[in-house]
Amino acid sequence: MRYGHRPKRDKRISTHLALVARAFGADEIWFDEKDQNIEEKLEGVNRTFGGGFKVKTGVNWKEALTTCKEQGWCIVHLTMYGMPLPQIVKSIRREERDMLILVGGPKVPRLFYEIADYNVSVTNQPHSEVAALAVFLDWLLEGKEFQLEFRGGRLKIIPSERGKHVEALGGGNGEPC
Amino acid sequence: MRYGHRPKRDKRISTHLALVARAFGADEIWFDEKDQNIEEKLEGVNRTFGGGFKVKTGVNWKEALTTCKEQGWCIVHLTMYGMPLPQIVKSIRREERDMLILVGGPKVPRLFYEIADYNVSVTNQPHSEVAALAVFLDWLLEGKEFQLEFRGGRLKIIPSERGKHVEALGGGNGEPC
Repeated sequence: MRYGHRPKRDKRISTHLALVARAFGADEIWFDEKDQNIEEKLEGVNRTFGGGFKVKTGVNWKEALTTCKEQGWCIVHLTMYGMPLPQIVKSIRREERDMLILVGGPKVPRLFYEIADYNVSVTNQPHSEVAALAVFLDWLLEGKEFQLEFRGGRLKIIPSERGKHVEALGGGNGEPC
Repeated sequence: MRYGHRPKRDKRISTHLALVARAFGADEIWFDEKDQNIEEKLEGVNRTFGGGFKVKTGVNWKEALTTCKEQGWCIVHLTMYGMPLPQIVKSIRREERDMLILVGGPKVPRLFYEIADYNVSVTNQPHSEVAALAVFLDWLLEGKEFQLEFRGGRLKIIPSERGKHVEALGGGNGEPC
């Protein structure tokens, strides 16, 4: 869940966050502000590249957070003030609960720090919630995001040493979107 | 080096790229378009959090790329069409040359694919150049970015399980910027 999404100013950052969540194995991303644009954008990516990733916008963050907590989810808050990822990741990997990952902009409610089971820093330097989410999920999954399969898309990228190699699947036209 | 920076549209993405490059151990970031704003922003981050990270904008990308190649630098191009990072990272770690990492937006010159010593994908799904750069550097450094020291700043963040703990250094006032 991304807190503090401002549809105009954060358009590209929020799109990158959603794409990272999808590519690195999350099932859904939630935004507090309504933003149909980002929902449609990710539906298009699913159609082209497959998978069933979901975007929910206009989510009441406080209600969602409280509900997840009450239902026993593991809450992870990514913040530059938190405990270093390498120190804490093994404990988080042992969790078998559903997981809610909180990312914010510069300012987030104090409640995030209090309600989180883990406040996690991806370095203690200022950088990017997009990068923090990607590196966190990469460590959590121990690189397994590289083997994820996204089914039902039109296109599949075939890794190449040079240039672009794209395979058309079931009715696709082979052109990258 | 970031190709295709558009100072207005890409302001936040480019700032995130620069901050990621700094936090994950690069010495410099180069942008093709002139953009004083991002130079000043990162100078401010260095003053507050330390280190000597440099931002160069208005760099002629073709000249820079050709010069690096002629001087024998290792050129890495991050692209969703490239070879998977886990397959290729060991070879790249063995390189002892200076390294230029190329990141683009959706479209980059064909030359990037041809001139690169390594075209590297951080998953073959569309996501974010910010995330790709962070995950690439994290794998390249095998997590050593978590031990980097940034000297000469006003503030140092002390990792905490809850809340924010910031130490003022030499004349700082202890307030996060």
